[in-house]
Amino acid sequence: MADPAWQPPEELRAIADLDLDRTQRRGYPEAVYCEGKTPDQLRTIAAALREKDARTIFTRADAERAAAILQVLPDAGHDPDSRLLWWPAVPPEPSGGLVVVAAAGTSDLPVAREAQRTAELLGRRTELVADVGVAGLHRILRRLDLLRSAAVVVVVAGMDGALPSVVAGLVSAPVVAVPTSVGYGASFDGLAALLTMLNACAPGVAVVNIDNGFGAGHLAAQIAAPR
Amino acid sequence: MADPAWQPPEELRAIADLDLDRTQRRGYPEAVYCEGKTPDQLRTIAAALREKDARTIFTRADAERAAAILQVLPDAGHDPDSRLLWWPAVPPEPSGGLVVVAAAGTSDLPVAREAQRTAELLGRRTELVADVGVAGLHRILRRLDLLRSAAVVVVVAGMDGALPSVVAGLVSAPVVAVPTSVGYGASFDGLAALLTMLNACAPGVAVVNIDNGFGAGHLAAQIAAPR
Amino acid sequence: MADPAWQPPEELRAIADLDLDRTQRRGYPEAVYCEGKTPDQLRTIAAALREKDARTIFTRADAERAAAILQVLPDAGHDPDSRLLWWPAVPPEPSGGLVVVAAAGTSDLPVAREAQRTAELLGRRTELVADVGVAGLHRILRRLDLLRSAAVVVVVAGMDGALPSVVAGLVSAPVVAVPTSVGYGASFDGLAALLTMLNACAPGVAVVNIDNGFGAGHLAAQIAAPR
Amino acid sequence: MADPAWQPPEELRAIADLDLDRTQRRGYPEAVYCEGKTPDQLRTIAAALREKDARTIFTRADAERAAAILQVLPDAGHDPDSRLLWWPAVPPEPSGGLVVVAAAGTSDLPVAREAQRTAELLGRRTELVADVGVAGLHRILRRLDLLRSAAVVVVVAGMDGALPSVVAGLVSAPVVAVPTSVGYGASFDGLAALLTMLNACAPGVAVVNIDNGFGAGHLAAQIAAPR
Amino acid sequence: MADPAWQPPEELRAIADLDLDRTQRRGYPEAVYCEGKTPDQLRTIAAALREKDARTIFTRADAERAAAILQVLPDAGHDPDSRLLWWPAVPPEPSGGLVVVAAAGTSDLPVAREAQRTAELLGRRTELVADVGVAGLHRILRRLDLLRSAAVVVVVAGMDGALPSVVAGLVSAPVVAVPTSVGYGASFDGLAALLTMLNACAPGVAVVNIDNGFGAGHLAAQIAAPR
Amino acid sequence: MADPAWQPPEELRAIADLDLDRTQRRGYPEAVYCEGKTPDQLRTIAAALREKDARTIFTRADAERAAAILQVLPDAGHDPDSRLLWWPAVPPEPSGGLVVVAAAGTSDLPVAREAQRTAELLGRRTELVADVGVAGLHRILRRLDLLRSAAVVVVVAGMDGALPSVVAGLVSAPVVAVPTSVGYGASFDGLAALLTMLNACAPGVAVVNIDNGFGAGHLAAQIAAPR
Amino acid sequence: MADPAWQPPEELRAIADLDLDRTQRRGYPEAVYCEGKTPDQLRTIAAALREKDARTIFTRADAERAAAILQVLPDAGHDPDSRLLWWPAVPPEPSGGLVVVAAAGTSDLPVAREAQRTAELLGRRTELVADVGVAGLHRILRRLDLLRSAAVVVVVAGMDGALPSVVAGLVSAPVVAVPTSVGYGASFDGLAALLTMLNACAPGVAVVNIDNGFGAGHLAAQIAAPR
Amino acid sequence: MADPAWQPPEELRAIADLDLDRTQRRGYPEAVYCEGKTPDQLRTIAAALREKDARTIFTRADAERAAAILQVLPDAGHDPDSRLLWWPAVPPEPSGGLVVVAAAGTSDLPVAREAQRTAELLGRRTELVADVGVAGLHRILRRLDLLRSAAVVVVVAGMDGALPSVVAGLVSAPVVAVPTSVGYGASFDGLAALLTMLNACAPGVAVVNIDNGFGAGHLAAQIAAPR
Repeated sequence: MADPAWQPPEELRAIADLDLDRTQRRGYPEAVYCEGKTPDQLRTIAAALREKDARTIFTRADAERAAAILQVLPDAGHDPDSRLLWWPAVPPEPSGGLVVVAAAGTSDLPVAREAQRTAELLGRRTELVADVGVAGLHRILRRLDLLRSAAVVVVVAGMDGALPSVVAGLVSAPVVAVPTSVGYGASFDGLAALLTMLNACAPGVAVVNIDNGFGAGHLAAQIAAPR
Repeated sequence: MADPAWQPPEELRAIADLDLDRTQRRGYPEAVYCEGKTPDQLRTIAAALREKDARTIFTRADAERAAAILQVLPDAGHDPDSRLLWWPAVPPEPSGGLVVVAAAGTSDLPVAREAQRTAELLGRRTELVADVGVAGLHRILRRLDLLRSAAVVVVVAGMDGALPSVVAGLVSAPVVAVPTSVGYGASFDGLAALLTMLNACAPGVAVVNIDNGFGAGHLAAQIAAPR
Repeated sequence: MADPAWQPPEELRAIADLDLDRTQRRGYPEAVYCEGKTPDQLRTIAAALREKDARTIFTRADAERAAAILQVLPDAGHDPDSRLLWWPAVPPEPSGGLVVVAAAGTSDLPVAREAQRTAELLGRRTELVADVGVAGLHRILRRLDLLRSAAVVVVVAGMDGALPSVVAGLVSAPVVAVPTSVGYGASFDGLAALLTMLNACAPGVAVVNIDNGFGAGHLAAQIAAPR
Repeated sequence: MADPAWQPPEELRAIADLDLDRTQRRGYPEAVYCEGKTPDQLRTIAAALREKDARTIFTRADAERAAAILQVLPDAGHDPDSRLLWWPAVPPEPSGGLVVVAAAGTSDLPVAREAQRTAELLGRRTELVADVGVAGLHRILRRLDLLRSAAVVVVVAGMDGALPSVVAGLVSAPVVAVPTSVGYGASFDGLAALLTMLNACAPGVAVVNIDNGFGAGHLAAQIAAPR
Repeated sequence: MADPAWQPPEELRAIADLDLDRTQRRGYPEAVYCEGKTPDQLRTIAAALREKDARTIFTRADAERAAAILQVLPDAGHDPDSRLLWWPAVPPEPSGGLVVVAAAGTSDLPVAREAQRTAELLGRRTELVADVGVAGLHRILRRLDLLRSAAVVVVVAGMDGALPSVVAGLVSAPVVAVPTSVGYGASFDGLAALLTMLNACAPGVAVVNIDNGFGAGHLAAQIAAPR
Repeated sequence: MADPAWQPPEELRAIADLDLDRTQRRGYPEAVYCEGKTPDQLRTIAAALREKDARTIFTRADAERAAAILQVLPDAGHDPDSRLLWWPAVPPEPSGGLVVVAAAGTSDLPVAREAQRTAELLGRRTELVADVGVAGLHRILRRLDLLRSAAVVVVVAGMDGALPSVVAGLVSAPVVAVPTSVGYGASFDGLAALLTMLNACAPGVAVVNIDNGFGAGHLAAQIAAPR
Repeated sequence: MADPAWQPPEELRAIADLDLDRTQRRGYPEAVYCEGKTPDQLRTIAAALREKDARTIFTRADAERAAAILQVLPDAGHDPDSRLLWWPAVPPEPSGGLVVVAAAGTSDLPVAREAQRTAELLGRRTELVADVGVAGLHRILRRLDLLRSAAVVVVVAGMDGALPSVVAGLVSAPVVAVPTSVGYGASFDGLAALLTMLNACAPGVAVVNIDNGFGAGHLAAQIAAPR
Repeated sequence: MADPAWQPPEELRAIADLDLDRTQRRGYPEAVYCEGKTPDQLRTIAAALREKDARTIFTRADAERAAAILQVLPDAGHDPDSRLLWWPAVPPEPSGGLVVVAAAGTSDLPVAREAQRTAELLGRRTELVADVGVAGLHRILRRLDLLRSAAVVVVVAGMDGALPSVVAGLVSAPVVAVPTSVGYGASFDGLAALLTMLNACAPGVAVVNIDNGFGAGHLAAQIAAPR
């Protein structure tokens, strides 16, 4: 719980207004978006979070920014592929429904893992299935039982982005669709997959931003939250 | 339940392959998208649905198409503003969590009502709040208690599409964001609102297609389903 | 065969340079694109074609333009839904491989029929299957035998445009993918489906312009031509 | 004041036609856009400005270009983060109304500071508030008094760009909205935020180019000018 | 002043949450955007405004919607060309600086007049100059004295949208630039003019949405407000 | 020659600032763009032009606007297909080089004739060749002698817009390329043809706006002007 | 033939679900898209393929990824220019019709060779003609005999992308059109050429993704397959 | 003149089909586009050109490619800023009209010089004026005499691209407009300037591709050619 008497140090106030009440207000911890922040700023922020003992996820941290955070929070968790850090390193006890994450191709795995890890850090059980794109339908059909046991399915796909339509037609749970920038030419860095998902012919598809594994995992955790 | 021995009539097979097992497979009734279908085709489809006694929602039915459906299913429900019909007219008993639908402006109401009605027809309790756009923040803040009592909030907004970001920052439930084509010039028929919502700075926002009230209501019903 | 001594009348030369050698040069008859031509111009063109006894397909002819053509060629074939006319009305004897046309939704049928009819008029056997979109996978899987017997499969789909990826993963024949303008909002009049198809994750997908049933049927007829 | 008898040196005339009368004509000093200029060209320009004793702002100068300018004008002011230099280093005495600059996120700070510094160099008092995005509304609401004391508020935001709509609904002064390229995927390098701001549902929002902190500060200084 | 005890009637609450405190909070009256509202809804809103005696501007009201408003507020002002209505019909006493509106072409006049009228209704003196596009530079140069006497210049232009750059280079006051949808082809309904204005090579240009004469007039009135 | 003492009537000054010196300054008569002007405004403008005896071209005049102009200038020339009027009706004596206009398809003829007529009205000899698109190369190759005798070739094409590249590779004169909105789907109302022409692999291609026959004819007349 | 009893190793299952039945199901070998896969992942995949003795094509492998594959499959074929590897190195015996690949410019050669090599690896005879763009028509006309002997022509072009329209008008075989990202400015990385090809005025043009030489070669091999 | 008996060497035929008759057919020398060609390919091409003694311009050659060409043609001319090489180094005797090149900003100079140099190499007299953008109108007005003495004016501008509209309104010669990628944010790499120029409100503007100085110089040389 946030301490209303706490005064953020001057160098923090100049750059950030940490939302430490967020856990209380929304039920989920603060997330720090690292792109565009300098390593110095991240060190200042990390120090304040450590002082306040506030559970936090750091997203989109490249190697240089991750190193800055780890300097201050050496015991934080870190997955370089999905550019995610989290502190403390141990996720909370799982509760609520199962989150299944399905990745269409091997190249979609970093985003899929960002989603999976985020859901886990927000307290959900998760499963990941890889490389089940629609070019070989038998691959996704073989996982029907797992998919149907989920409270929510996160589907990660680049290129044609067709997998969420197919999955949504097979399950009764909501599908969180994450377009990725995997592809080239007329994929326009994920725009093609994004449009496909927004136009899914099966209802029940919730779309998030391109490559937004964190957002997908967060949304999935909220949908599968214990009620 | 679908009768596997049932043979669709010839004129139906020429135009449609009704997904009558959908209720069983997905737990939600068939929906018939009316745009681009001729009144004749809709009459054929409606007759088959009546014969199979299959609960159905008809979406995007203009006056001419609605009349064709009502010829065959005169006791269907009909909301001309949101171009929705449903049969039978009485929704199922409500179960699961509360779905709150918030419309940013008066012009967003037809889409908001399509979402509300759809959620109702899929078995959820619903509430609608109108005209709570961010230009007058006190309007949405005044409804915080209602918003926080929802299992899911559907937020419908055109123009700048800023309302879902604000709502998502205030509640712990997932937000389903529906961009509308309300606006002009650089709103590009809802593209601006769509992009705003995909880039929501608060996590927990699930985006659907522009003006897709049906999809939003369906997704909300799935999220708020009893577990 | 074109008669090199033939001199087109003055009023024809002012508006068109008919490609009467096309059958000889390319093996396929002339096609007249009717949009943007006046009824008067179409009458002049039709009269010249009748005089030269040249097999012809007229595409995208609305009611007014169709009437003008039928005035001059009253025994022409006409399908108002797909805005196609053809003269003479009887197609040539079929030869070559089978062309299967699959339409994802009922609203895609006019374009699908334009493709089917065109392939027929260029001398191929054809089959049409309707309403086999990916939201209910069992519908397309049920037709696998027919699809696998085709020399080429034309797949017509709007909205998410996901069907060609799925079909291409199931057959060894080439797939001609036709995006349609069926949809709304972020379908951007068929752009979403077009991009999906260009990014199909299964190889073997040949894309044509949005709503271009004629082009798809023509291409399919060429692919399935006797060799 | 510009000396009409002054003749620019040959090497300057080959590359630039300095607008030294601008202060007189418009009341604001010359600004030199450094991108696309070579270090040599910048040295030539800086030398002429020094010779003419002309107050100047240099925008978008990367490290190499900044070094070239500082070689000629070693006593110039320099803020590497916002890529701004100014000469002379001391801003004029402040006059006119207060300019408040609000940055939605920490990553928006370089652009916000470019705006703040520019307004200051054009003679205005300024205040900067950081990290007050709409995901945590309490942060901006806490600054209402400061915002309402401003003659103009500059609001800098990336991602959803929703903050200017909210601020414009709370104050009577004009809001200058600066979209930033902060974000990823469907932010399309600031396009999403730009469109949001152009469609602001509250009137009174003046939009400038993406990342154009200089232009925003300049416009704000003009709006808050003494009258 | 808003009466806190006032209870909006039921049929109003179902569709709108009128921001009657806006004059107090922002200093400017409520504006009702008419597109997408039904005539019935507008009658309900107009009746409430009449009852509360609240100064109001109605924007983008076509003939049918204007008639509905005039039924309830027969003494309202009305300019059919710019689709504006206002009530009461008499503008407030002018105060603050002069607002000059410059229209590049005759076809830009409806938007220019919407801006002029809005500024007038918010209490400013205004002048309008027509047909001063850059293809004949002498036309704008001839008005330099008037332009330089303004506290703010609103420049309305379609097609190439080049006029704001030229005007901003000639005056010290801020320029509010309004792109219009006048043009064809690659004007893309005003997008070309919008982009031109966002990239104006002279600083001091505040851009609003395409065809947004109301927003431009509102912003201009705020900039020229008495201080 | 313009009479400097002439004073435009009040009702004209309110809407237009006619550029009657244009013939003197630029050597070409005034052109009045009719879209977005009311019939009343056009009557006022036409009356002033008649009074000043100023040679004028009216572009993009639909039936209603043409009728208004013809009321005041009953002896004006008029081509309804290309929506052009001109006064006086007799073009000047031809001088300078030959302008050849080539239209790719019959549907491109209205724009091609607008270009041809404009060049004629500005004093050039012209020739028009119709229906010479690249799908039947022999058609354009047959006209090589005519094309090579031109001082400038105007090439009008919709759909793929490929003809200017081909023509520019065959002649030494400049090619003015006019994309048209002929086409559908991914032609995006002429955008596809526009991009093709901007990327012409043969140098010597001057591109104008989509459907801008007037601009193309004007530019061609300038290029072929006597020197 | 795939061995149904085979169990993929754990580290493979975590990243990929190899479609080893693809040759059986579709008649063509598995292709591995290398972009976005790590060298480690590619080594794991290559090892499994070697163990299963499965003919494979690796696409879009940069130097680092190619090295990883060659470590495991040192006897694989490799063309660095087109970033293609294949294993085993010897293509199958050719069968079916001739595939002619035509490249518009020298810069289009890497994509053209990717198409040629792919068709060869799938069992077709191929010919490549280089630098036959439409700016010098005689170059393509000189190859008419070769083009007309093909069962399918692959046409690779950047910039204006006009070559497929011209070729399709000259031959009776289908044309597979590959837009390339060769060009600059308004080529928008191949978008211009893509749109040109989708709008080809000659029927019979099958479009694939920008720079998709592999897809074009695969499609051509299917079209020219023995029947 | 090209020698019809000449046989290009094998390694040349594999990559290029040099258009050595171009000077004869079009009156202008061959141009070699260097982007996307390897240094080896450029050496082969340069050797053939030297052997045939064919006047040539090399465009868009970066340092590595320029070095390759200079190895074979050490006496070629070279301007690294505009990435242009030409051989032989001495331009032909000037003939025809004057080409004036006007650059809006200093950053537009490389493109402006590419245009100037190209026109010179094709045999025209040229003049260049720098930094005459519309933000300071007096700069271009000061050069009116020079501009009016030109047979054609090339106008090079980035950002708002407004200069060609202004210049075309002041002169009777055609204007060749070159948008540049100078700018940021909503300039979208020159798209904004391109659209501005296509929508120029003054007729007589010929647009070429973004940054296409070579094309502009070529077109200008054709327009100003002796007749």
